[in-house]
Amino acid sequence: MVPHIFRYEISPHVWVYLECNGILHSGRSGFQKIEVVDSLDFGRMLVLDGVINLTERDEFVYHEMLAHVPLFSHPEPHNVLIVGGGDGGTAREVLKHEGISRIQLVEIDEEVISVSKRYFPALAQALDHPNVNVLVTDAVEYLKETEEKFDIILIDSTDPVIEQSGGLYTVPFYKDCLNALTERGIVAAQVGDVFFEPHLVMSVFNNLKEAFHIAKIFYAPIPSYTIFPYCFAFCSNEIDPQGGSGLPRFDGSFETKYYNPQIHQAAFALPEDVRRNFEG
Amino acid sequence: MVPHIFRYEISPHVWVYLECNGILHSGRSGFQKIEVVDSLDFGRMLVLDGVINLTERDEFVYHEMLAHVPLFSHPEPHNVLIVGGGDGGTAREVLKHEGISRIQLVEIDEEVISVSKRYFPALAQALDHPNVNVLVTDAVEYLKETEEKFDIILIDSTDPVIEQSGGLYTVPFYKDCLNALTERGIVAAQVGDVFFEPHLVMSVFNNLKEAFHIAKIFYAPIPSYTIFPYCFAFCSNEIDPQGGSGLPRFDGSFETKYYNPQIHQAAFALPEDVRRNFEG
Repeated sequence: MVPHIFRYEISPHVWVYLECNGILHSGRSGFQKIEVVDSLDFGRMLVLDGVINLTERDEFVYHEMLAHVPLFSHPEPHNVLIVGGGDGGTAREVLKHEGISRIQLVEIDEEVISVSKRYFPALAQALDHPNVNVLVTDAVEYLKETEEKFDIILIDSTDPVIEQSGGLYTVPFYKDCLNALTERGIVAAQVGDVFFEPHLVMSVFNNLKEAFHIAKIFYAPIPSYTIFPYCFAFCSNEIDPQGGSGLPRFDGSFETKYYNPQIHQAAFALPEDVRRNFEG
Repeated sequence: MVPHIFRYEISPHVWVYLECNGILHSGRSGFQKIEVVDSLDFGRMLVLDGVINLTERDEFVYHEMLAHVPLFSHPEPHNVLIVGGGDGGTAREVLKHEGISRIQLVEIDEEVISVSKRYFPALAQALDHPNVNVLVTDAVEYLKETEEKFDIILIDSTDPVIEQSGGLYTVPFYKDCLNALTERGIVAAQVGDVFFEPHLVMSVFNNLKEAFHIAKIFYAPIPSYTIFPYCFAFCSNEIDPQGGSGLPRFDGSFETKYYNPQIHQAAFALPEDVRRNFEG
């Protein structure tokens, strides 16, 4: 029998092929094609418009880093906004932090939520937690209008190249984020692949630098996204993620699989050629 | 026209496909099949028995980390042994350090050297440096017999799964390395992929721990090897690569593309699940 193959593009000239057991779900929402693919090495994968959004095998790296790096950098986070994140993985990680009284999650595509509840219950069950408020709407509009203030905003969207996410990567959007932040507030965002898409990463980063005093890149390996470590951004007007006494306040009150205080610091070490481009 | 495709296996169920302009060289030595493939995104690639050994695009990460992490951890290295490394890339990086009076390179396969001189002159020209002595023989035998002492031994071989390299991953070989080291000597070695080959990495690492007081893992992303950061080992009886005042002695007397003092420290930060396995 010929095995099922799922192929994803890393660059126009590089692809990764994954052997799969089959496709568990395939549908189309008002925004995108949504598939759930069962792969041998990465487990179940949520695929949006042909792009892997998460896999059971490595989602912990992405969700732990997007949530814990900003949350452990903030002295006392209570109120968290998640932009996107309809799968529930980021909410799951945020809920592990003591003192979180409210998570507002704004997802544009209701179908992502319902598919995740069916195929990724270990992630999506976080959305049913009493401290999590799920709103299905466009986060760009939501942030223009909200009067609420958040300690942390996590931008857990699809890639900047995808149409409905484009608005999440502009200077006006970042300024709206800033307006919705408390004084020591932090924005963390997924950005992209600096090895194969350096111009894209640089342009997102330049937009972030226009809106925030402190804007730094941090890295984590997410093999199902790309073969080079994946870039996140950390932005704040007050808080330096590498500041203070060195290591972040990590109390060990819950277990992690990727994040720890050494990884927190290490994630901000940039390869010399990247450092020269971004800081030079 | 159908593009040329080079395929490499990451695991039995995951492959990377690279679009190529063609094959520049294909031959067989007494030890292995040697090919030079011209790829669009990774440039020229040296392929041994179907496995990518180096590419023009990312070889700097591998060679800088294998050489500079141990060399900048040592207070005063003079005499360096390279096991394998017939392409010249590691020797090129070692030669950048002041105070290196002698590099002994022991490569088992003369064909690797001659193919590299023809297709990778920017790397292989290091082999013609007056301080580099190239010996074509089996390093396992060489290390049993040599009476020379080295400050640094760099094990720059093919993977432990490949037949002619198997002897380079055993406790007796590591003990022979230790015998050939000066008192504060360091061994650094390429090891493997802890995401897809955790048992292989663990067994190499356990062998290293039997031979040396200090044995640590460090990481670097080498996309043409595997989609997860690649593992190296640092071993010594005296020197802790993270010891002393924090950052290593990096004098900035030459330019790097990947290595810098922050990357040096960051490379030793292990993902929490790996840390628990290796240190727990």
